[in-house]
Amino acid sequence: MSHNTFGHLFRVTTWGESHGPALGCVVDGCPPGIRFTVAEIQAELDRRRPGQSRFVTQRREPDAVKVLSGTILDEDGETLITTGTPISMMIENVDQRSKDYGEIARQYRPGHADYTYDVKYGLHDHRGGGRSSARETAARVAAGAIARKVVPGVVVRGALVSMGEKSIERANWNWNFVDDAENPFFTPDPASVPVFADYLDGLRKAGNSVGAVIEIVADGVPAGLGAPIYAKLDQDIASNLMSINAVKGVEIGNGFEAARITGQENADEMRMGNDGKPVFLSNHAGGILGGISTGQPIVARFAVKPTSSILTPRKSIDKDGNDVDVVTKGRHDPCVGIRAVPIGEAMVACALADHYLRHRGQTGR
Amino acid sequence: MSHNTFGHLFRVTTWGESHGPALGCVVDGCPPGIRFTVAEIQAELDRRRPGQSRFVTQRREPDAVKVLSGTILDEDGETLITTGTPISMMIENVDQRSKDYGEIARQYRPGHADYTYDVKYGLHDHRGGGRSSARETAARVAAGAIARKVVPGVVVRGALVSMGEKSIERANWNWNFVDDAENPFFTPDPASVPVFADYLDGLRKAGNSVGAVIEIVADGVPAGLGAPIYAKLDQDIASNLMSINAVKGVEIGNGFEAARITGQENADEMRMGNDGKPVFLSNHAGGILGGISTGQPIVARFAVKPTSSILTPRKSIDKDGNDVDVVTKGRHDPCVGIRAVPIGEAMVACALADHYLRHRGQTGR
Amino acid sequence: MSHNTFGHLFRVTTWGESHGPALGCVVDGCPPGIRFTVAEIQAELDRRRPGQSRFVTQRREPDAVKVLSGTILDEDGETLITTGTPISMMIENVDQRSKDYGEIARQYRPGHADYTYDVKYGLHDHRGGGRSSARETAARVAAGAIARKVVPGVVVRGALVSMGEKSIERANWNWNFVDDAENPFFTPDPASVPVFADYLDGLRKAGNSVGAVIEIVADGVPAGLGAPIYAKLDQDIASNLMSINAVKGVEIGNGFEAARITGQENADEMRMGNDGKPVFLSNHAGGILGGISTGQPIVARFAVKPTSSILTPRKSIDKDGNDVDVVTKGRHDPCVGIRAVPIGEAMVACALADHYLRHRGQTGR
Amino acid sequence: MSHNTFGHLFRVTTWGESHGPALGCVVDGCPPGIRFTVAEIQAELDRRRPGQSRFVTQRREPDAVKVLSGTILDEDGETLITTGTPISMMIENVDQRSKDYGEIARQYRPGHADYTYDVKYGLHDHRGGGRSSARETAARVAAGAIARKVVPGVVVRGALVSMGEKSIERANWNWNFVDDAENPFFTPDPASVPVFADYLDGLRKAGNSVGAVIEIVADGVPAGLGAPIYAKLDQDIASNLMSINAVKGVEIGNGFEAARITGQENADEMRMGNDGKPVFLSNHAGGILGGISTGQPIVARFAVKPTSSILTPRKSIDKDGNDVDVVTKGRHDPCVGIRAVPIGEAMVACALADHYLRHRGQTGR
Repeated sequence: MSHNTFGHLFRVTTWGESHGPALGCVVDGCPPGIRFTVAEIQAELDRRRPGQSRFVTQRREPDAVKVLSGTILDEDGETLITTGTPISMMIENVDQRSKDYGEIARQYRPGHADYTYDVKYGLHDHRGGGRSSARETAARVAAGAIARKVVPGVVVRGALVSMGEKSIERANWNWNFVDDAENPFFTPDPASVPVFADYLDGLRKAGNSVGAVIEIVADGVPAGLGAPIYAKLDQDIASNLMSINAVKGVEIGNGFEAARITGQENADEMRMGNDGKPVFLSNHAGGILGGISTGQPIVARFAVKPTSSILTPRKSIDKDGNDVDVVTKGRHDPCVGIRAVPIGEAMVACALADHYLRHRGQTGR
Repeated sequence: MSHNTFGHLFRVTTWGESHGPALGCVVDGCPPGIRFTVAEIQAELDRRRPGQSRFVTQRREPDAVKVLSGTILDEDGETLITTGTPISMMIENVDQRSKDYGEIARQYRPGHADYTYDVKYGLHDHRGGGRSSARETAARVAAGAIARKVVPGVVVRGALVSMGEKSIERANWNWNFVDDAENPFFTPDPASVPVFADYLDGLRKAGNSVGAVIEIVADGVPAGLGAPIYAKLDQDIASNLMSINAVKGVEIGNGFEAARITGQENADEMRMGNDGKPVFLSNHAGGILGGISTGQPIVARFAVKPTSSILTPRKSIDKDGNDVDVVTKGRHDPCVGIRAVPIGEAMVACALADHYLRHRGQTGR
Repeated sequence: MSHNTFGHLFRVTTWGESHGPALGCVVDGCPPGIRFTVAEIQAELDRRRPGQSRFVTQRREPDAVKVLSGTILDEDGETLITTGTPISMMIENVDQRSKDYGEIARQYRPGHADYTYDVKYGLHDHRGGGRSSARETAARVAAGAIARKVVPGVVVRGALVSMGEKSIERANWNWNFVDDAENPFFTPDPASVPVFADYLDGLRKAGNSVGAVIEIVADGVPAGLGAPIYAKLDQDIASNLMSINAVKGVEIGNGFEAARITGQENADEMRMGNDGKPVFLSNHAGGILGGISTGQPIVARFAVKPTSSILTPRKSIDKDGNDVDVVTKGRHDPCVGIRAVPIGEAMVACALADHYLRHRGQTGR
Repeated sequence: MSHNTFGHLFRVTTWGESHGPALGCVVDGCPPGIRFTVAEIQAELDRRRPGQSRFVTQRREPDAVKVLSGTILDEDGETLITTGTPISMMIENVDQRSKDYGEIARQYRPGHADYTYDVKYGLHDHRGGGRSSARETAARVAAGAIARKVVPGVVVRGALVSMGEKSIERANWNWNFVDDAENPFFTPDPASVPVFADYLDGLRKAGNSVGAVIEIVADGVPAGLGAPIYAKLDQDIASNLMSINAVKGVEIGNGFEAARITGQENADEMRMGNDGKPVFLSNHAGGILGGISTGQPIVARFAVKPTSSILTPRKSIDKDGNDVDVVTKGRHDPCVGIRAVPIGEAMVACALADHYLRHRGQTGR
């Protein structure tokens, strides 16, 4: 049991705050013989790094990852090979000066964990949100970059599918566009870019923020991962996604839509395929039946709330019990959901790696 | 790590299939000195028991619970007192004859776990769904009945808030009506009963089924339960709810709605209350900030898909790879979401009991 | 985390007290397709059952095991096949009348857990020792009977090697004699039987008791099980053996003897064998190097203290704080170490099954 | 489940090899508000650091610890205060050049994990023993230094009680002498120093090595820690000690001696003390009854085997299957048991901290 670990056989422990010297993670249980490069991990980290467009926070954090253990260097001088022992990765905080938080240090920002931290622990590190800082998610992305290598053939991708009142057009879905240099939103719909841009500019200028919905799709997941009851694959994906900051809802497959339709509509009918495997005629289930993967793509979505760090004054109290009006200055993301896309991918990749090893342990397959 | 256990300090392991001799659970880690009666557990079990209206399956299962260990009998001859050792509870299956499942035994029912079980385990107990049987949830309800006693002052209640296209009117919400004898739906809105009844009768007669959304509210939860990152209270509630059969989505507080609104709208503002505790002016967060309870009511919702056990033929395949049309006869619930209400309550109660003990362990409070 | 579970992938949860209606266990994570019969489990239980000679307690407990879940019946009508879901086993207590414990119920027996239970839990079930009752070990033996089937080719056997001041002659070691009908001691040395018998008769008549050392040997364990640091195979075997009642010491290989000799003497030298596998020229290590199995036999020993339930009066106190002299009447084993042999075997078998699945999960081998 | 973590609520994950850039640990679950200084941790690390006498390896490793997360700095500018979030500590390896291991890199050293690593993982980091390096234990000592602060009033001390054929005289036991500057052995008996020195000099000059027995005593442990069955306090202490490199045996209280004596001799009689607490007239049990602490001192011993890294040639094989004679040159400890004293203390301190939090979680006391 741990408050800072997730996974069972592919097990990730993260540590660190945004204003300490560093943050990082320990990946335990990774199979031996997995090959990766630091550049591959760095590439994933760069996807979530702030400062890459006007729509995300302008803080500059290089987020350079170091691999401290658990690998040997291949003869090519670049590829790391896992040894089966714990992989420690560290990202140093380049700017850990404790800024003058001034009065905000004693105010409970609405929608933040300031108040709950104080109640729980009797003290908290108010500098930058402590463990709740978005920077902690860099450690998840680093771990996820390794997790992606564990299950042969699996590809985990994510996209932003709605922002506030605006949604993508699914008919325009283009995975290749998601990481396009002209796409600051991880949207799969090129036509949505100007719509999201105008919308977000307006909110930003108004000192406001907005939420988003992210969809993660994992292709190539073998059938059989998961378990019927308390280790359902969908349960662990939901748990992993819900552990991301600001997430308030998770869906698998058609999710809440399943509650609105009938059994006739919802059933994913099957026919025998030419390759001896069943062909599903639809995928309302999101690739999971009875907690176990079907071989179809795994589909999950999660809702990210708008950040409460906004310029508009909000009513609150301070540590001394005074009523105050809080204004959160600084360089905050107007839509924290955007950068949640690579984080969501990482969390799903970790869940799949873990269940792949668990399934192999129990069944030998 | 276990495929059939949930919780860490308040830890529940369930076992059993619907067609074996019995099913049950072991509750480990319960504090000593908790007092309860078998009648109290039975009362919770009776709430989820089938056969109580025409809208649920007509199977007759008395679901009589026995407490086999972990308690001593008080001098009143009725109250059990926990000793701190594992509490084993068992429910015998009264009708465990293996009915003639006939050809259905070799067919993969769409939307069921038949196919995924076979792929995962190489074999499965086709009688009644094995571990995926709804009967397994009786064990959760029994464990939840004890969990309700662990956190002083907590009350966990649930209600069905929508069924297919029909929803309750929140202005009519009446907790007292939920368990009313005239209410076969666990709806909190008396006016919704005839609406749901007509709707469900129509679906049932058409050999169809429908999904539902359930809302669970926990009042009296002390502030401070949970943790910032991978033991968020909302994460564990989501995990517990997603582990219930047929659940495809989970929300905390305003959930997916949070992704549609702005930071100004979503922030729960605070003022100092007369009793020295903060007063929140709204509860979009559902009682949890940064993974830690605020002292407000905890609010969670989950979406239950329509059962795939319907009379309408659906395309599928059988174990031999033949295309078949599957018709699921038998006594199935047209809306399995109805009986999910006490199950959802139990799962939230267990999450709260677990986090209460975890918080106390770490902080001594 | 659980106080009543051991193992990770092959995971055993036990429950029950000696004076409740039943006791039992849930075995979770067992691979699917394992075949066993109830008779095989019963045979192991019968080995630890009391009442089989004058040297063990004369209580009559049939210890008849029922398998309640997790299996399907093979067409032969006898063989059970595991489905991969939790296996619940139950043993009913035939005589659960709460005897008149009288004043003993309020006395803290020296060497028993009466006092520590009261301090820990604030109350305890004084009837028969509660969870510390030797009857709890029946659940371990049942679980171990299944664990024996998990690792192909492994044979786990145990023997009593010393009792008080008397020891076996290792030159006489004969595994076939251990379960001989004329051998009430699980000794591997036929010549030791009259020695142990006379010694124990003398102690029994004097109202005294004595300790013993048990040795467990596992043959056929594949090389590679375990891990270098905190999941050492020897560590988990030690933990499992130390969890048995009355055990005060555990050794692997030559154990404490290794602390008395030099590195020259202690090293297990190797030569290449004809089959392409190394041949070890000795086995001081007990089959484990760096926490990982070598392919040699695993050898572990544990020390069982003499029971404190003796007829000789011992000084103690009661719950009211009075000084008392305690005499423990009743049918107690003069050497509880004898019946610890099958229990030790079961605990080692469970550790091996668990590590086999863990190794397979991580490495795919 | 983790291969590199121990503890449940006070949970330590270690990472790193001796020849990578660094090694370290993450301590999760520590209560908030614990105060310590880096100097205190460093002082514990310095006790196990090599190079401090001619009887230990002459490698020079400063072992300077950095605290990277989980604390805030008190106003005194020196004291760290835990926040309840994970404490990451790192020790950089100053000399991580991969020395020319030459042919030894392909040879399986007898008594080392070289062979088992290769069998398990299919590859291994042969530089300095990988995870089995004694350097890993620095991380344990750092974690233990924090663990010592968790249980109010507890003092954990250790001492070497025998080395090979030589033992201390218990009548001379003097805790103050253990850390004396003139004492290179952590012996509590001043008279033993010349005896051990002569003995070890002889072995060292002969290119040989020797084992040792270490005793750990924890004073001030409150009664009630532990649990009756699979979370026995003695079991977890044994598990923690057995996880230390080269440990082959563990005892609690009188340990194996308990197997040699009678129940009359072994019982720890009690009388009521003047302060309302029981007084035990002896402590054969080592402070633990039925897995639960009694309030007496906790006493544990462990046996450390002699290192196999000796100058005397030993028969072995290499990776290519050739018979070879292995000579391990380099700066190795002739008695690795000496430096195991602070490691054993740390592991016991961690077990106590964990059980203290577990007990508090379940019982609120």
